[in-house]
Amino acid sequence: MNTILQTISNLIDKSSVAFISYIDEQGFPNTKAMLAPRKRENLTAFYFTTNTSSQAVKYYMENSKACLYFCDSSSFQGITFIGHAKVLQDQANKNAIWQENDEIYYSKGVTDPDYCVIKFTAKKARYYSKFKTTDLNIT
Amino acid sequence: MNTILQTISNLIDKSSVAFISYIDEQGFPNTKAMLAPRKRENLTAFYFTTNTSSQAVKYYMENSKACLYFCDSSSFQGITFIGHAKVLQDQANKNAIWQENDEIYYSKGVTDPDYCVIKFTAKKARYYSKFKTTDLNIT
Repeated sequence: MNTILQTISNLIDKSSVAFISYIDEQGFPNTKAMLAPRKRENLTAFYFTTNTSSQAVKYYMENSKACLYFCDSSSFQGITFIGHAKVLQDQANKNAIWQENDEIYYSKGVTDPDYCVIKFTAKKARYYSKFKTTDLNIT
Repeated sequence: MNTILQTISNLIDKSSVAFISYIDEQGFPNTKAMLAPRKRENLTAFYFTTNTSSQAVKYYMENSKACLYFCDSSSFQGITFIGHAKVLQDQANKNAIWQENDEIYYSKGVTDPDYCVIKFTAKKARYYSKFKTTDLNIT
């Protein structure tokens, strides 16, 4: 892996939160923080736990266009991924990223109907560091 | 001002960065960190310095639909504003929020053609705190 991709991987792996964006019914972008992804496949797929009742889930089921953003503001670095988000409600995917103590968020446990998975699949990425922007081919 | 609006104002005023989102030409949301707003009018208007050559400026000139987000991940609080972004290129607005040392970002100073202002005007807001979401009437 080249240096820039390794730097980005490190930035992601040390992030405690990620920022996801979706498009609402009036065409506005909406952004919110999420717990860091529980699993990722290189820089192309990211899996998040979330509430089935959330606005993000509602709107991703209508329009999968999504953004995923990580940043380290102390070092002026950020990585913006553009791609598609899919809501996964099958038990296998829910089991795959469940962790001990997730009952804090989903009181009924891993089968809680209010627990589901968002899979974000990146199609392109843009990295910012020290006033410089780099478009990346990640697929 | 009621307590929740005061809490949100405090969250914003102690944030060193803000996250803005725009819609690109293919309809995808795009998010990036910005330096904290230089000026705000209550919770309805926020002024940011930015590069005229940036993607955000390019796309806001085509589609003003925008999101502005602040968060304090250590306390699980976030505030999402939905509204419109306008690119201001007149000298009065550029002068109004210019600060000493901004030459770091805009080498030609306050008249640098690559320096401009983004004004974000909120039309609604959603506040997250401790697993609870509150829709706010801010206008």
